[in-house]
Amino acid sequence: MNILVVGSVAYDSVQTPEGSNRHQLGGSATYFSISASYFTPVGLVAVVGKDFARQDFHLLEEHGVDTTGLETNAGETFRWKGQYTEDMNAAITIETRLNVFEKFKPALPESHRRAPYLFLANISPDLQHAVLDQMSSRPKLVACDSMNLWIEIARPRLLELIEKVDVLMINEAEARQLTGMRSLVGAAGALLKRGLKALVVKRGEYGAVVFHKDFTFAAPAYPLARVVDPTGAGDSFAGGFMGYLAAVDDTGAEAMRRAAVAGSVMASFTVEDFGVGRLNSLKTTEINARFNAFVELTRFHPLGGGQGLPLTARTA
Amino acid sequence: MNILVVGSVAYDSVQTPEGSNRHQLGGSATYFSISASYFTPVGLVAVVGKDFARQDFHLLEEHGVDTTGLETNAGETFRWKGQYTEDMNAAITIETRLNVFEKFKPALPESHRRAPYLFLANISPDLQHAVLDQMSSRPKLVACDSMNLWIEIARPRLLELIEKVDVLMINEAEARQLTGMRSLVGAAGALLKRGLKALVVKRGEYGAVVFHKDFTFAAPAYPLARVVDPTGAGDSFAGGFMGYLAAVDDTGAEAMRRAAVAGSVMASFTVEDFGVGRLNSLKTTEINARFNAFVELTRFHPLGGGQGLPLTARTA
Repeated sequence: MNILVVGSVAYDSVQTPEGSNRHQLGGSATYFSISASYFTPVGLVAVVGKDFARQDFHLLEEHGVDTTGLETNAGETFRWKGQYTEDMNAAITIETRLNVFEKFKPALPESHRRAPYLFLANISPDLQHAVLDQMSSRPKLVACDSMNLWIEIARPRLLELIEKVDVLMINEAEARQLTGMRSLVGAAGALLKRGLKALVVKRGEYGAVVFHKDFTFAAPAYPLARVVDPTGAGDSFAGGFMGYLAAVDDTGAEAMRRAAVAGSVMASFTVEDFGVGRLNSLKTTEINARFNAFVELTRFHPLGGGQGLPLTARTA
Repeated sequence: MNILVVGSVAYDSVQTPEGSNRHQLGGSATYFSISASYFTPVGLVAVVGKDFARQDFHLLEEHGVDTTGLETNAGETFRWKGQYTEDMNAAITIETRLNVFEKFKPALPESHRRAPYLFLANISPDLQHAVLDQMSSRPKLVACDSMNLWIEIARPRLLELIEKVDVLMINEAEARQLTGMRSLVGAAGALLKRGLKALVVKRGEYGAVVFHKDFTFAAPAYPLARVVDPTGAGDSFAGGFMGYLAAVDDTGAEAMRRAAVAGSVMASFTVEDFGVGRLNSLKTTEINARFNAFVELTRFHPLGGGQGLPLTARTA
C-alpha cells in the first residue's frame, strides 16, 4: 500500500439541477481512494454500519483498495442529504446523520502505519492528530483537508495540525476564514509561514491553485457541457493529486504541478455522473485523453529567448 | 491607426474594500485604448462634456491614442458611481449619470473607417450596428462587448450583431442570460453556431476562457496580493487581447491563445490601483515580466510521446 486515507464512507442522497439520486455510495475516503487507486495501491481507514452493502465492499476491493482498516460497527452508515441549486460550487446540507461515524476512532492496522503517503480527509482535527500519532514513521508527504465547522470550533487544534502536515487542501472561503485575510495570496502566505509546503485552494468549476513555497500553479477545471453531481469533486481531486505523487514517488515542484492536473482530471470525471458512477469505471485511455485535453486547454507559446511581447517603442 | 474602439469615456467614483476614489478617469474606451496602446496605435471614438480635463486629453495622447474621434459636447461627461464589497467580481452601481453620453451618436472620422481591428465596447447594440455600418471595409477582426441591460431590452438587435462580429466578450452571467443555458460550454456552442469565431468569457478573479470554434483555452487571472479597484479590468483585458492580435496582425488559434494571456496581463495591472493609476504608467519590462509570470503560473510537463500517466495495470 502506497497511500493511506482516513476519512468518511457514507451513503448520500443528492438533488442537483440535473436530477436526484438516493443512497449513493459516497464519503471523502471513498472518492479519494477510488480516484487514487488508478495511480497506486490505496489503504482506507473508515467506519461503516451493519447496513453497508456487500457490493460496496466489492466495489472498493475491485479497485485494489485495502479495506483491512474499514471497520463495521453496530448501527447505520453515515448518511448525508444535500442539494445543489444553480450554483454547483456550493452544496446545501439538508440532513446529516453521523450514525456510526459519530464515534469513529481511527485505529490503524499495523500494516498501514508505514504508508509513505497519507491523506487526512475532512474529519475533526483531533482525529487527524490521532492518525498522525499512530504512524510508525513520518510519511514522505502528509496532506489534509478540513472544513468551516472545524475552523469555527477547533481552530487551535487545526492550526497545530497544519504545522505537522505538508499540504493543506481547502476551498477559498475556508482559506479566508482560517486566516482572516481577504486575499488568497495573503492567506497562502500566512499558511506557508506556519510550515506548510503547499496550500491547495480548491475553486470548484474554476479549478485549483497550488500555492507552494517555491511557486504558484493554477489548474483550470475542465469545461464540461454537463455537470451532473459535484459531490466528491474535491476528494477526487485530492485522490488524483496524491495518487500521482505517490505513483511517481516525487514531491518536487514539477511533480506537484502535474499532480494538480491529475487531480483536476479525476475531479472532472466525478462530476459527470451521480456519486462514483463515472469515477468507478474509467479506462486508461480516457484518463490519458483527459490529461491531454488539459494540455490543450492551457498551452500557449511563451516568449522566445530574449524576445518580448510586440510592444510599441513608445513604452519605456 | 491599427485598432478602433468605440465606447464610453467617463469619470468614475468608486469605493472598494481597499479605499475610495472620486472622479477618476474611466469608461470602457479609456481602459481599452490605454491597454491596447502598449501594443499598437489606437483610435478612439467617444464623447465627453465641457468638463473633460485637459490633462485627461493629454493622458490619452501621451499613449499615442488618436483622439480625432473624441467629440466634446455641451454638458457634463458621463459619470458612474459604484461600489465593490468583499466580492470584487461584481460592481454595485450607486448612480449613473449618462449626461452627454445619453445622446452619443458615434460618427467615425474618414481616417478611422478602414481600421483593420475594431472593438465595439459596451454601448447599445443599435449604436454598435451604426459603427459597423460606417466602416468602409470589413475589418479583419471585430470584437464586441455587451451587458445584461442590452440582453434584456435589445436582445434581437444584439443577436443580429453577433452574426456580424467575430468575437463576443461577455461575463459568465451574461453568457447564461443571453442563451438561457446553465452550462458555459452549452452557451458557447449556441453562440458559435450563430457564426462567432470565438466567445471570450470573462470571469474576474478566475480569469477568462476562450471558446473558439477550433479550440478552448483557459487563462487564469494573475493571483494578486492586493486588488485595489476592479473597475476596467474587462476592458483592459479586451485591450490587451485586441492589441496583441493587431500588433502581430494574426487572428489564428495560436495568436488568440497568446492574446488571451496578454489580455490577462493587462487586466492584472489595472486592478492594482484605482482607475488607470497603474495601467497608465507601465514599462516594457513590467509587461514582459508579468507575461512570463503567467507562463510560470500555468506550465506543466505534458505526457511524453506515447507515454501516459503512471496508471496501475489493473485499469483497462
